[in-house]
Amino acid sequence: MAEHESRLSAVQDRLRETNTDLLIVGPSSDLYYLIGLAGNPSERLKVLLVFREGQTAMVLPGFEVSLIDHLDVHPRAYPWQETEDPIPALQRAVKGLGGARRVAIAPQLWSVFLLRIQAGLPGASFVDGGPLMASLRMRKSAAERALLKAAAKIADDAYLTLITQPLVGRTELEVLGMIHDALRQGGMDRLGGGIVGAGPNGASPHYKTAGRTIASGDGLVIDYGGQHRGYSADITRTPHAGPAGDEFRKVYRIVQDAQQAAFDAVRPGITCEAIDRVARDYITRHGYGAQFLHRTGHGIGLDGHEEPYLVQGNTLPVEEWMTFSIEPGIYLPGAFGVRIEDIVVVTAGGAERLNTCTRDLVVVQ
Amino acid sequence: MAEHESRLSAVQDRLRETNTDLLIVGPSSDLYYLIGLAGNPSERLKVLLVFREGQTAMVLPGFEVSLIDHLDVHPRAYPWQETEDPIPALQRAVKGLGGARRVAIAPQLWSVFLLRIQAGLPGASFVDGGPLMASLRMRKSAAERALLKAAAKIADDAYLTLITQPLVGRTELEVLGMIHDALRQGGMDRLGGGIVGAGPNGASPHYKTAGRTIASGDGLVIDYGGQHRGYSADITRTPHAGPAGDEFRKVYRIVQDAQQAAFDAVRPGITCEAIDRVARDYITRHGYGAQFLHRTGHGIGLDGHEEPYLVQGNTLPVEEWMTFSIEPGIYLPGAFGVRIEDIVVVTAGGAERLNTCTRDLVVVQ
Repeated sequence: MAEHESRLSAVQDRLRETNTDLLIVGPSSDLYYLIGLAGNPSERLKVLLVFREGQTAMVLPGFEVSLIDHLDVHPRAYPWQETEDPIPALQRAVKGLGGARRVAIAPQLWSVFLLRIQAGLPGASFVDGGPLMASLRMRKSAAERALLKAAAKIADDAYLTLITQPLVGRTELEVLGMIHDALRQGGMDRLGGGIVGAGPNGASPHYKTAGRTIASGDGLVIDYGGQHRGYSADITRTPHAGPAGDEFRKVYRIVQDAQQAAFDAVRPGITCEAIDRVARDYITRHGYGAQFLHRTGHGIGLDGHEEPYLVQGNTLPVEEWMTFSIEPGIYLPGAFGVRIEDIVVVTAGGAERLNTCTRDLVVVQ
Repeated sequence: MAEHESRLSAVQDRLRETNTDLLIVGPSSDLYYLIGLAGNPSERLKVLLVFREGQTAMVLPGFEVSLIDHLDVHPRAYPWQETEDPIPALQRAVKGLGGARRVAIAPQLWSVFLLRIQAGLPGASFVDGGPLMASLRMRKSAAERALLKAAAKIADDAYLTLITQPLVGRTELEVLGMIHDALRQGGMDRLGGGIVGAGPNGASPHYKTAGRTIASGDGLVIDYGGQHRGYSADITRTPHAGPAGDEFRKVYRIVQDAQQAAFDAVRPGITCEAIDRVARDYITRHGYGAQFLHRTGHGIGLDGHEEPYLVQGNTLPVEEWMTFSIEPGIYLPGAFGVRIEDIVVVTAGGAERLNTCTRDLVVVQ
C-alpha cells in the first residue's frame, strides 16, 4: 500500500535532483511498479504524469477511469473521450499541475505517443527516464526478492523435471513445449519465448527455436523464463544428449568455473564491469575469449532484462539487494554452445543464488 | 517468400509518395510483417531501416546477425558489439544508404530508442510511421484471412465449450482460466489478458478480472482472444448465469440488433465512422446512447487492435479484405453490461463474419 506512495515520492526526489519537471510513464513494468496498474500498451494513449511537486495525474480513456479507483494511490484523472484527441487532456494536466520544460520519458512508451507529446509540448526538452526508473527499481524489496525466488524455483523445478524425460528424437520445439507445460503447472502466469538450441544451433546465443530433432551427441542450450506474479525468472542450462565428447566437457567446465568465479566476485561495491571482467578473463585465459559473444549478465525484476547490466563500460557499483543474471557462454560455430545462467541477489556479504538446481553437466537420453 | 519483398517495395512506394527518406521499425508486428522476423522489443537496439531507394538495412547486436540469415529477404547488417553504443552503426547505415531528412518511425518503437535516434540524427524531422504501415497492413491477403479465420474458430470453440460447463460458484478468474485452457488446447500460441466481468463488473468495459464469485442472476461479459500463428482473435459474448430479468433481456436484444445492423451496413466504400454511426444510432434510438461508452470496433490482424478504427471522425472508406471487430455495448453502472463482438472481413458484396458461434442470449448454470 504505502509502497506505491513512497515510490512516487522517490520519483519526485529524483526529478528535483536532476532539475526535471515531469516523468511520463505509459503502460509498462514502470507503471506497474509506480502505481500497481498492470496492462499492455495499446493504441489508446494512457500515461501517468509524475510532477516534481504536487499532484500526480493520469491521462486515460474516459471509459477506463474506474480502473484507477481501485488503486491505492489516486492520480488525478484527465480523461479523454473516444472521439477526442488525447493531447489536449495532457496539455491541461501539464498546465494545471506543474509545467514541463524538461520532461523524462519512461523507456518503453511507444514512439507514436512520444511524437504526439513532443508536438503537444513544443517548448519542452525530452530525456530518457530510464536512469531515473532504474535508480528506483534496481534494489529489490524483501517482497520483491521473495517473488523472484519463487519464480526461480518454478524454473528450477521445470529443469529437474525435464532432464528425467527422454529428449532424443524430439524436436527442439517439442522440448520447449514440455518446458512451457512444466512452467505453467509450476505457477508461471506468463511465459517468455525460450530457447532450445540443439547441437550447432546452440552456437547462436539468441537462436530461434525450430524443428531440429535432437540426436544423441547434441549439446542442448536451454534458456527460458517467465513471470510469476509479475516477477521474472530466467535460467540457462546446457545438458548433453548422450555421452559428451572431450571438447564439450572441457568447454563446459570452463563455462561452469567462469560462472562460479563471477558469482564469487559479487559483493556490494564491486562494479558491474568488474564482474563481467572476472568471467571474461577466466574464459580468455582458457582460450575461448573470442567465443564469449555477449555481456555476462542483466538485471531482472518486473522485466526479464533491466538494469544493472554486467557489461564492460558499466562502472556502476552493485549494491545490496540488486538482482541480476550471471550467464557466461562459449559458442563454437558449427559445433555447439554452452551457457550457464543463474539469477543472483547481492547480499551484505556477497551474493545468493536464486536458481539452485544443478549446474553440473547432465546427460539426458 | 516474395511477399516480404513486395511489402518492402510497397513501403518504398509510400516513402516516395510522402517525400520521406526512411522508415525505422523496431521489433513489433510491423517488423514481422515486413521481413518475417518475430520477437519482442528489448533493451538492445534492433531496428530495420527501409530507405526510399536502394538497400534495406538492419542495425542489430553483433551476436544476432545470424538470425537474419534465415529470412527470405536480406537486409544489410550493421552490427554493433555488446560494449558499443549502437547509434554510430545506425549513423553509418543512414550515411551509406540514403540519408535521413524526414524519417518515419513505426509506432511501437520504444521511446528510449527514438530519443537516441533523434539525438543521433540532429538534422532530421521525425513523423509517425503508423499511417504508412496501416496503409499496407489493413487489407489482408488470402493467407492472412485464413489465419484470422482459424484464430476465430479457436475462440468460437472455446466459447461453445465454456457454456456447457457449470459457472455459478466459480470466480471470474477461474472462468478466465477455463477459457485460457480451452484456447491453448485449441491451438492459440499466445494468450491475451481477457475479461470476465460478472454482474455489475460487466458495466466497466475494460474491467480487470478479479475474484467475484459468479451467482445466478449475473450477466457475464466475457471478452478474450489470443494469437494463432501470429494472427489475432477477439470475441465478446455476454451469457447470463441463470434466468435473465426483463431489463437484461431488453438491453441484450438492443445490443444484438445494433451489432447486426452495423454488420449489415458493411460494404466496400462505406466509411468507418458511418459503420460506427449505424450501431450508435440504433442504440441511441432505443434509449441507451449515453451508455454505449466506446467506439464500435477496431481492425485486427497481427495486432489485436490495429487500423482501421470504427470511430466517429474516421472518414476512411473500408475496402475489400479489411478485417475488424464490430462490438457495440451498453453499460449500466451498478447493474450489468452487455457487449457482443465478432470479427468480420469486408468482401466485394458486403462482409463475412469470422466468428460464427451463437450470438443469441445463452443461459449458463
